[in-house]
Amino acid sequence: MRKQEPFISGSLQRLVAELAKLPGIGPRSAGRLVYHLLKGERKRIQALAEALAQVAERVRECSVCGNFTEEDPCRICTGADRDPGLLCVVEQPFDVLVIEKAGSFRGRYHVLGGALSPINGVGPEDLRIEALLKRLPGEVREVILATNPNVEGETTSLYLQKKLRPLGVRVTKIARGLPIGSDLEYADEVTLAQALEGRVEI
Amino acid sequence: MRKQEPFISGSLQRLVAELAKLPGIGPRSAGRLVYHLLKGERKRIQALAEALAQVAERVRECSVCGNFTEEDPCRICTGADRDPGLLCVVEQPFDVLVIEKAGSFRGRYHVLGGALSPINGVGPEDLRIEALLKRLPGEVREVILATNPNVEGETTSLYLQKKLRPLGVRVTKIARGLPIGSDLEYADEVTLAQALEGRVEI
Repeated sequence: MRKQEPFISGSLQRLVAELAKLPGIGPRSAGRLVYHLLKGERKRIQALAEALAQVAERVRECSVCGNFTEEDPCRICTGADRDPGLLCVVEQPFDVLVIEKAGSFRGRYHVLGGALSPINGVGPEDLRIEALLKRLPGEVREVILATNPNVEGETTSLYLQKKLRPLGVRVTKIARGLPIGSDLEYADEVTLAQALEGRVEI
Repeated sequence: MRKQEPFISGSLQRLVAELAKLPGIGPRSAGRLVYHLLKGERKRIQALAEALAQVAERVRECSVCGNFTEEDPCRICTGADRDPGLLCVVEQPFDVLVIEKAGSFRGRYHVLGGALSPINGVGPEDLRIEALLKRLPGEVREVILATNPNVEGETTSLYLQKKLRPLGVRVTKIARGLPIGSDLEYADEVTLAQALEGRVEI
């Protein structure tokens, strides 16, 4: 049997192992990343290390909306230019980033921290639903449900609709339909059915 | 025009920007990675930061072979179980890792730091060729050229052959042919031609 000689330095091995734990990065691409970093300036690796350490130290959940933030409440919750009457409910903090990048929404958010999933043992008490109900109605005119268009997301959306209706706020959900730039030919049946059902007057 | 509100905390933005500079990671997957990290324990982010800082601080080029290492000379150059008679010449430190992982080579390495490329202005003086020649012949019986099977790699290989021949060491290059597990049907023409040319007696 071949003797397993440590052919890679301890600290390199540790870094490759840490990176390989990240989603979408296997051991081989982790190795490639590390060697790419080493080919550049040491400053850049240090900058990355510092950026990570700062995030670990400073970033917390916003106590109001549940988004990741350095200030509590977060800048979106306190932003004077954000409409307090519009509340967009999403599953994950990353969804806030995605919607913010799209740049057309000027209301506020509520992050549930996941979606209902009986199979995975995720019930209403595991999500920030109680915290959502406490924010309502307050200044809120409309709650926009922006859970994912999959089974868990739709289940969560239905559950929330039931909970929100008695509160006297308008409840909407973001449209399902053909993505812009896509081709009708390649649309799946469920999307097409929803696009037809959700057709709008022109 | 839409006012550009900072919708993502300073330290998060900085980390996403740093990660997005890495090869194969765009701004979107950088964001996804960061939010994935934040969903887990802070300890894990700190571990990654520390692993990076250690690598930045400790890892240097081996003064003998040019591989990345914490000890100089590296463990492969000093390893008692490594045959000093076999010297494998590669372009990048990452190639050492790849060959070591394959686990069948028990000689030593020499990392060139790249390949000859007149178009990109990379000449012999930009590579660790002088350092290679200084190591020869010494204890070395055979130099194995393991540059990449592309134009730059083959150019470098030819250049080295010319330089090494007068030194009285055996010069070989790693075989080109069909990769194991592949299908003859899908082999490209150049690979197939080289596989035929490099055919071996059975």
